Amino acid sequence: MVGIVIVSHSYKIAEGIKDLTDQVANGHKGIVAAGGMEDKSIGTDAVRISEAIKQADEGDGVVILADLGSGIMSAETAIELLDGEGIDVRLADAPVVEGAITAAVTAACGSNIDQVIAAAEQTRTVKKIN
Amino acid sequence: MVGIVIVSHSYKIAEGIKDLTDQVANGHKGIVAAGGMEDKSIGTDAVRISEAIKQADEGDGVVILADLGSGIMSAETAIELLDGEGIDVRLADAPVVEGAITAAVTAACGSNIDQVIAAAEQTRTVKKIN
Repeated sequence: MVGIVIVSHSYKIAEGIKDLTDQVANGHKGIVAAGGMEDKSIGTDAVRISEAIKQADEGDGVVILADLGSGIMSAETAIELLDGEGIDVRLADAPVVEGAITAAVTAACGSNIDQVIAAAEQTRTVKKIN
Repeated sequence: MVGIVIVSHSYKIAEGIKDLTDQVANGHKGIVAAGGMEDKSIGTDAVRISEAIKQADEGDGVVILADLGSGIMSAETAIELLDGEGIDVRLADAPVVEGAITAAVTAACGSNIDQVIAAAEQTRTVKKIN
Protein backbone atom coordinates (compact mmCIF):
# COMPACT_ATOMS: atom_id res chain seq x y z
CA MET A 1 0.00 0.00 0.00
CA VAL A 2 1.02 3.61 -0.59
CA GLY A 3 2.27 5.13 2.67
CA ILE A 4 0.87 8.38 4.08
CA VAL A 5 2.76 10.92 6.19
CA ILE A 6 0.79 13.61 8.00
CA VAL A 7 2.72 16.85 8.60
CA SER A 8 1.27 19.55 10.83
CA HIS A 9 2.73 22.36 12.91
CA SER A 10 0.62 20.91 15.71
CA TYR A 11 1.44 17.57 17.28
CA LYS A 12 -2.22 17.26 18.32
CA ILE A 13 -3.57 17.85 14.80
CA ALA A 14 -1.27 15.21 13.26
CA GLU A 15 -2.12 12.66 15.98
CA GLY A 16 -5.83 13.45 15.65
CA ILE A 17 -5.73 12.91 11.88
CA LYS A 18 -3.95 9.59 12.49
CA ASP A 19 -6.76 8.59 14.89
CA LEU A 20 -9.35 9.34 12.18
CA THR A 21 -7.45 7.47 9.47
CA ASP A 22 -7.17 4.48 11.84
CA GLN A 23 -10.98 4.39 11.79
CA VAL A 24 -11.48 4.69 8.03
CA ALA A 25 -8.41 2.73 6.84
CA ASN A 26 -7.96 0.28 9.66
CA GLY A 27 -5.90 -2.27 7.77
CA HIS A 28 -3.28 0.25 6.61
CA LYS A 29 -0.14 0.13 8.77
CA GLY A 30 1.81 2.73 6.74
CA ILE A 31 0.11 5.90 7.97
CA VAL A 32 2.46 7.95 10.15
CA ALA A 33 1.95 11.25 11.99
CA ALA A 34 4.82 13.76 12.03
CA GLY A 35 3.38 16.77 13.82
CA GLY A 36 5.13 19.46 15.83
CA MET A 37 8.67 19.43 17.13
CA GLU A 38 10.48 16.70 19.10
CA ASP A 39 9.14 18.19 22.40
CA LYS A 40 5.59 18.46 20.93
CA SER A 41 5.80 22.27 20.67
CA ILE A 42 4.46 24.08 17.56
CA GLY A 43 6.57 23.73 14.42
CA THR A 44 7.73 21.21 11.85
CA ASP A 45 10.93 19.17 11.86
CA ALA A 46 12.47 17.84 8.63
CA VAL A 47 14.33 15.04 10.44
CA ARG A 48 11.14 13.80 12.13
CA ILE A 49 9.37 13.94 8.76
CA SER A 50 12.15 11.99 7.03
CA GLU A 51 11.94 9.28 9.70
CA ALA A 52 8.15 9.16 9.24
CA ILE A 53 8.60 8.72 5.47
CA LYS A 54 10.92 5.73 6.01
CA GLN A 55 8.47 4.23 8.49
CA ALA A 56 5.49 4.71 6.13
CA ASP A 57 7.20 3.21 3.09
CA GLU A 58 6.12 -0.31 2.15
CA GLY A 59 7.69 -0.11 -1.31
CA ASP A 60 4.72 1.49 -3.09
CA GLY A 61 5.71 5.10 -2.44
CA VAL A 62 4.69 7.66 0.17
CA VAL A 63 2.36 10.65 -0.08
CA ILE A 64 2.84 13.61 2.29
CA LEU A 65 -0.01 15.86 3.40
CA ALA A 66 1.05 19.10 5.11
CA ASP A 67 -0.93 21.88 6.75
CA LEU A 68 0.82 25.15 5.84
CA GLY A 69 3.55 26.54 3.63
CA SER A 70 6.42 26.10 6.06
CA GLY A 71 5.30 22.49 6.61
CA ILE A 72 5.67 21.98 2.87
CA MET A 73 9.20 23.41 3.06
CA SER A 74 10.14 21.06 5.91
CA ALA A 75 8.71 18.16 3.94
CA GLU A 76 10.78 19.15 0.90
CA THR A 77 13.90 19.22 3.10
CA ALA A 78 12.93 15.80 4.50
CA ILE A 79 12.68 14.44 0.95
CA GLU A 80 16.16 15.81 0.19
CA LEU A 81 17.49 14.09 3.33
CA LEU A 82 16.27 10.78 1.86
CA ASP A 83 18.01 11.29 -1.47
CA GLY A 84 19.44 7.93 -2.56
CA GLU A 85 17.09 5.85 -0.36
CA GLY A 86 15.01 4.97 -3.43
CA ILE A 87 11.65 5.92 -1.90
CA ASP A 88 9.07 7.38 -4.31
CA VAL A 89 7.88 10.18 -1.99
CA ARG A 90 5.70 13.06 -3.15
CA LEU A 91 3.70 15.96 -1.72
CA ALA A 92 -0.05 16.28 -2.25
CA ASP A 93 -1.35 19.84 -2.64
CA ALA A 94 -4.46 19.30 -0.55
CA PRO A 95 -6.17 20.31 2.71
CA VAL A 96 -4.41 18.40 5.47
CA VAL A 97 -7.36 16.80 7.31
CA GLU A 98 -9.66 16.19 4.36
CA GLY A 99 -6.79 15.18 2.06
CA ALA A 100 -5.23 12.77 4.56
CA ILE A 101 -8.50 10.97 5.24
CA THR A 102 -9.24 10.54 1.54
CA ALA A 103 -5.65 9.53 0.80
CA ALA A 104 -5.78 6.91 3.56
CA VAL A 105 -9.00 5.37 2.25
CA THR A 106 -7.71 5.39 -1.33
CA ALA A 107 -4.36 3.85 -0.34
CA ALA A 108 -6.07 1.19 1.78
CA CYS A 109 -8.06 0.15 -1.33
CA GLY A 110 -4.78 -0.65 -3.08
CA SER A 111 -4.60 2.36 -5.38
CA ASN A 112 -1.24 3.49 -6.74
CA ILE A 113 0.58 6.69 -5.74
CA ASP A 114 -0.80 8.75 -8.64
CA GLN A 115 -4.34 7.76 -7.70
CA VAL A 116 -3.77 8.52 -4.01
CA ILE A 117 -2.42 12.00 -4.81
CA ALA A 118 -5.26 12.71 -7.24
CA ALA A 119 -7.88 11.64 -4.65
CA ALA A 120 -6.29 13.81 -1.95
CA GLU A 121 -6.06 16.86 -4.22
CA GLN A 122 -9.63 16.40 -5.38
CA THR A 123 -10.87 17.14 -1.82
CA ARG A 124 -10.26 20.85 -2.52
CA THR A 125 -13.37 20.87 -4.68
CA VAL A 126 -15.69 18.71 -2.58
CA LYS A 127 -18.53 20.77 -1.12
CA LYS A 128 -19.30 20.12 2.56
CA ILE A 129 -22.55 22.07 2.62
CA ASN A 130 -25.38 21.33 0.20
CA MET B 1 -14.78 40.37 16.74
CA VAL B 2 -16.46 37.56 14.81
CA GLY B 3 -16.32 34.35 16.85
CA ILE B 4 -14.91 31.11 15.47
CA VAL B 5 -16.00 27.57 16.42
CA ILE B 6 -13.83 24.65 15.36
CA VAL B 7 -15.72 21.37 14.89
CA SER B 8 -13.83 18.13 14.35
CA HIS B 9 -14.58 14.47 14.95
CA SER B 10 -11.25 14.44 16.78
CA TYR B 11 -10.80 16.24 20.09
CA LYS B 12 -7.06 16.45 19.33
CA ILE B 13 -7.54 18.08 15.92
CA ALA B 14 -9.88 20.76 17.29
CA GLU B 15 -7.54 21.53 20.22
CA GLY B 16 -4.52 21.58 17.89
CA ILE B 17 -6.24 24.06 15.56
CA LYS B 18 -7.07 26.21 18.60
CA ASP B 19 -3.36 26.14 19.58
CA LEU B 20 -2.39 27.36 16.09
CA THR B 21 -5.03 30.11 16.04
CA ASP B 22 -3.78 31.26 19.46
CA GLN B 23 -0.44 31.91 17.76
CA VAL B 24 -1.73 33.77 14.71
CA ALA B 25 -4.69 35.60 16.31
CA ASN B 26 -3.48 36.01 19.86
CA GLY B 27 -5.78 38.87 20.85
CA HIS B 28 -8.97 37.04 19.83
CA LYS B 29 -10.75 35.51 22.82
CA GLY B 30 -13.75 34.19 20.84
CA ILE B 31 -12.15 31.14 19.23
CA VAL B 32 -13.53 27.92 20.71
CA ALA B 33 -12.72 24.26 19.98
CA ALA B 34 -15.59 21.76 19.94
CA GLY B 35 -13.94 18.49 18.93
CA GLY B 36 -14.98 14.93 19.67
CA MET B 37 -17.51 13.74 22.21
CA GLU B 38 -17.82 14.68 25.89
CA ASP B 39 -15.39 11.83 26.82
CA LYS B 40 -12.95 12.92 24.04
CA SER B 41 -13.80 9.89 21.88
CA ILE B 42 -14.27 10.27 18.09
CA GLY B 43 -17.49 11.96 17.01
CA THR B 44 -19.31 15.29 17.08
CA ASP B 45 -21.84 16.51 19.62
CA ALA B 46 -24.46 19.14 18.77
CA VAL B 47 -24.88 20.20 22.40
CA ARG B 48 -21.14 20.77 22.84
CA ILE B 49 -21.10 22.73 19.58
CA SER B 50 -24.06 24.89 20.66
CA GLU B 51 -22.28 25.72 23.93
CA ALA B 52 -19.13 26.61 21.98
CA ILE B 53 -21.15 28.96 19.75
CA LYS B 54 -22.54 30.80 22.79
CA GLN B 55 -19.04 31.04 24.26
CA ALA B 56 -17.55 32.35 20.98
CA ASP B 57 -20.21 35.01 20.41
CA GLU B 58 -19.18 38.58 21.19
CA GLY B 59 -22.15 40.09 19.34
CA ASP B 60 -20.55 40.15 15.86
CA GLY B 61 -21.63 36.67 14.79
CA VAL B 62 -19.93 33.27 14.80
CA VAL B 63 -18.41 31.26 11.95
CA ILE B 64 -18.19 27.47 12.23
CA LEU B 65 -15.50 25.40 10.52
CA ALA B 66 -16.13 21.65 10.46
CA ASP B 67 -14.05 18.74 9.22
CA LEU B 68 -16.47 16.30 7.57
CA GLY B 69 -20.08 15.97 6.47
CA SER B 70 -21.45 14.60 9.73
CA GLY B 71 -19.70 17.43 11.57
CA ILE B 72 -21.64 19.84 9.37
CA MET B 73 -24.87 18.04 10.31
CA SER B 74 -24.08 18.29 14.03
CA ALA B 75 -23.29 21.98 13.58
CA GLU B 76 -26.62 22.50 11.80
CA THR B 77 -28.39 20.82 14.72
CA ALA B 78 -26.42 23.02 17.14
CA ILE B 79 -27.60 26.11 15.25
CA GLU B 80 -31.21 24.89 15.53
CA LEU B 81 -30.74 24.41 19.28
CA LEU B 82 -29.83 28.12 19.50
CA ASP B 83 -32.93 29.25 17.62
CA GLY B 84 -34.21 32.43 19.31
CA GLU B 85 -30.88 33.29 20.96
CA GLY B 86 -30.28 35.97 18.33
CA ILE B 87 -26.77 34.84 17.40
CA ASP B 88 -25.77 35.30 13.74
CA VAL B 89 -24.08 31.91 13.33
CA ARG B 90 -23.08 30.47 9.97
CA LEU B 91 -21.09 27.59 8.50
CA ALA B 92 -18.07 28.14 6.26
CA ASP B 93 -17.62 25.61 3.47
CA ALA B 94 -13.85 25.35 3.84
CA PRO B 95 -11.03 22.99 4.84
CA VAL B 96 -11.06 22.82 8.64
CA VAL B 97 -7.41 23.56 9.48
CA GLU B 98 -6.62 26.00 6.67
CA GLY B 99 -10.04 27.67 6.89
CA ALA B 100 -9.95 28.09 10.68
CA ILE B 101 -6.50 29.67 10.67
CA THR B 102 -7.45 32.14 7.94
CA ALA B 103 -10.81 32.88 9.58
CA ALA B 104 -9.07 33.55 12.90
CA VAL B 105 -6.59 36.00 11.37
CA THR B 106 -9.35 37.74 9.40
CA ALA B 107 -11.64 38.01 12.43
CA ALA B 108 -8.80 39.30 14.62
CA CYS B 109 -8.29 42.12 12.10
CA GLY B 110 -11.86 43.28 12.77
CA SER B 111 -13.47 42.01 9.56
CA ASN B 112 -17.21 41.33 9.51
CA ILE B 113 -18.82 37.88 9.29
CA ASP B 114 -19.22 37.95 5.50
CA GLN B 115 -15.52 38.77 5.11
CA VAL B 116 -14.48 36.05 7.56
CA ILE B 117 -16.52 33.42 5.72
CA ALA B 118 -15.20 34.55 2.34
CA ALA B 119 -11.59 34.41 3.56
CA ALA B 120 -12.08 30.91 5.01
CA GLU B 121 -13.74 29.60 1.86
CA GLN B 122 -11.05 31.11 -0.33
CA THR B 123 -8.47 28.74 1.25
CA ARG B 124 -9.87 25.97 -0.99
CA THR B 125 -8.10 27.54 -3.94
CA VAL B 126 -4.79 28.53 -2.32
CA LYS B 127 -1.92 26.45 -3.68
CA LYS B 128 0.51 25.11 -1.07
CA ILE B 129 3.13 23.93 -3.54
CA ASN B 130 4.67 26.25 -6.11
